[in-house]
Amino acid sequence: LDFRTIIAKRRSGEAHEERELRMLAQGAADGSIPDYQLAAWLMAAVLRPLTTQETAWLTVAMAESGQRLDLTGLPQPCLDKHSTGGVGDKTTIVLLPLLAACGVTVVKMSGRGLGITGGTVDKLESVPGFRMDLSPAELLAQASRFGLAITGPTAELAPADRALYALRDATGTVASVPLIVSSILSKKLAGGAKNLVLDVKCGSGGFMPTFDAARELAQALRQTGELCGLKVRVALTDMTQPLGRAVGNALEVEEAFEVLSGEAGGRQRQAAQLQAEGGKPAAGRAASPSDGVEIAREAIARGHALHKAEEWFVAQGASGSRGSWGLPRARLQTEIPLAGEGGWIARLDPRAVGEAAVLLGAGRKTKTDAVLPAAGIECLAEVGDEVRPGHKLFRIHAETEEAAQAAQERLAEAVGVHSERVPPPPLILETF
Amino acid sequence: LDFRTIIAKRRSGEAHEERELRMLAQGAADGSIPDYQLAAWLMAAVLRPLTTQETAWLTVAMAESGQRLDLTGLPQPCLDKHSTGGVGDKTTIVLLPLLAACGVTVVKMSGRGLGITGGTVDKLESVPGFRMDLSPAELLAQASRFGLAITGPTAELAPADRALYALRDATGTVASVPLIVSSILSKKLAGGAKNLVLDVKCGSGGFMPTFDAARELAQALRQTGELCGLKVRVALTDMTQPLGRAVGNALEVEEAFEVLSGEAGGRQRQAAQLQAEGGKPAAGRAASPSDGVEIAREAIARGHALHKAEEWFVAQGASGSRGSWGLPRARLQTEIPLAGEGGWIARLDPRAVGEAAVLLGAGRKTKTDAVLPAAGIECLAEVGDEVRPGHKLFRIHAETEEAAQAAQERLAEAVGVHSERVPPPPLILETF
Repeated sequence: LDFRTIIAKRRSGEAHEERELRMLAQGAADGSIPDYQLAAWLMAAVLRPLTTQETAWLTVAMAESGQRLDLTGLPQPCLDKHSTGGVGDKTTIVLLPLLAACGVTVVKMSGRGLGITGGTVDKLESVPGFRMDLSPAELLAQASRFGLAITGPTAELAPADRALYALRDATGTVASVPLIVSSILSKKLAGGAKNLVLDVKCGSGGFMPTFDAARELAQALRQTGELCGLKVRVALTDMTQPLGRAVGNALEVEEAFEVLSGEAGGRQRQAAQLQAEGGKPAAGRAASPSDGVEIAREAIARGHALHKAEEWFVAQGASGSRGSWGLPRARLQTEIPLAGEGGWIARLDPRAVGEAAVLLGAGRKTKTDAVLPAAGIECLAEVGDEVRPGHKLFRIHAETEEAAQAAQERLAEAVGVHSERVPPPPLILETF
Repeated sequence: LDFRTIIAKRRSGEAHEERELRMLAQGAADGSIPDYQLAAWLMAAVLRPLTTQETAWLTVAMAESGQRLDLTGLPQPCLDKHSTGGVGDKTTIVLLPLLAACGVTVVKMSGRGLGITGGTVDKLESVPGFRMDLSPAELLAQASRFGLAITGPTAELAPADRALYALRDATGTVASVPLIVSSILSKKLAGGAKNLVLDVKCGSGGFMPTFDAARELAQALRQTGELCGLKVRVALTDMTQPLGRAVGNALEVEEAFEVLSGEAGGRQRQAAQLQAEGGKPAAGRAASPSDGVEIAREAIARGHALHKAEEWFVAQGASGSRGSWGLPRARLQTEIPLAGEGGWIARLDPRAVGEAAVLLGAGRKTKTDAVLPAAGIECLAEVGDEVRPGHKLFRIHAETEEAAQAAQERLAEAVGVHSERVPPPPLILETF
């Protein structure tokens, strides 16, 4: 089997056989297919998209290209979750203890942030002592004991995805729904997932700017996942403004605990409850979604979620409890008031807010940048809020005056105020 | 300028700017753009073809990626020729002295053969002493003195083409008219060409199997060439059977001299005259094509073409004269008679004949194979010929019994005989 034949098939839109996609995944993982041949195939796959069946074959082949985690020995049900990423999205930190408090085991691998999209690894590493480098054995032992465990990306799982993703990034072949789907799901499969809740963000702060594009990705994730033997629940959620108040690593951990303790309501709490609602029936526990959301609400109200979160943080190396994790605080805090006339917030562009956060050092421009854990932005108003002149819109947390100034300039472009009432956009666009 | 932006433009079918294609050609030549990025661009260019203007920009950029030959000091007019390659096509060896005998200077760079397509370098290297490694200075000096010179491919001219061609071969991105056009014309431009005659072969023995595909390539060569400042004449010619009698390196040199001396007529002579006819008006010498063909006919009849060919061979290192170049002769000659009933030859598949020649060692399966200079096949009948049972169809020139046997088996599939008269196919399909 010559890989050129496989490239030629993709180029002319002919259907691949399963063994061809196995050769591709194995060759990407072990380096036996040269990068330039993989790159040609990837571009052909962008312009002649894989079918759902081909995507599923590729996904399984990528998952099987390296080690796989076996979760069958853990207390069942087990659940995994994935978000396509957005600005201010700290749902994972809320959702994991919430589900664990409801008797659902969660084992999760997370990534680092790049560009305006934050990463859970960076957020949790802002907590002094928090370890994001658990070995597979540590991951399983902790999940078995406490019902939840999280770690950073590991080279052993789905090495084909690692190789292909690096190439896609370098060759302008990221934007392909089947390739995105196989990348996301192969890591989940390799991580042992059987039940999966997916949050596909829609809007300028997410990966998919339009509803149609986000819906296409969501459906492909659902359909391909099912062909791979996964139970999948998908939510399409709003990313036309940052999710919740905090954008920035330590600030987001702080807000997550406010949600877990029941102090903060708002959209971040709603998002976590939605995921719990979607996840519990997928894992077979609650009879209907509305039962799921009720159980999640109670886990917060009775303090079970907060307690589980504290257990979790301590298990992964943090010291203290809610409010005393020793989270870092930035040197400068500056509040930005509304400059012009009052009215209703009509626009709070998550891209601009995310870029301002990157300027502060809360995110990365390139993969090798370091992040400043305490830097970030609090959004003190949301779309639909009525604001008067002088109303505080943002609180900037900066390490230097220059960074604060640059962020402030970027934030000035983020906000639009309308003279008439604006309804807040719905958080949940569709679930299936 | 990030090359990923250029890839993304091609992927989405956006128009390239000239400077982007310059960056591509320069980066391919000096290695500053990694192979995997070039491969992704190439596949995008196959699936989202370049416009004629983009192809012309790329062609010029590739020509300017290395050294260029300056022919302005040579006796004018100067002409270059190119054939897309076929089985038994020894037109270059006839045409160069024919044109030189008519006062047209020809400086040509030729390639080696691969697969069923022969290469002029291999053909002329079957002549003992013939040098195909002239330096640019030697090439110009000889052309200045004798009116013609030829050499093999050199790494200094159009290095971008060399890099891109190797990648295209490895990544299934050969089949793209704009990429083929830029590859052909960039080498011609780098070689100093201003006037060009092109022979686009059409049929199973050539690069383009159908008339429509060959015509598309021919038109693209003409239009792009003109945008690059070349005067181009194109002929579409038949490759549904081998051109002329001989297929194989030394055998083809022998046939070329038969044509030059006026001994052999037939399709190979007709092909050379056609090229002369096309080339002379392009070079501004003859008022009309029919004048051109008349002058060429006379150059053969009066012995001028043969004389020029002898001068040329000696200038490039051969010893002797027509009939005494010391061409090698294969160990075995076997004649293959018609096995079945008589009739008219309806099919003489050039692909099968070419493959039989490769089995004999006259051609290469892979780039690194050596060729056997004396091996080959003489086709003793053409499509349209009436043949009786026992009529000799082929003469095989082989170095071993095994090779002869393998070639004979392949040749058995090459011939079809019809019980009713079959008209010979026209050699010239279209000229413009």
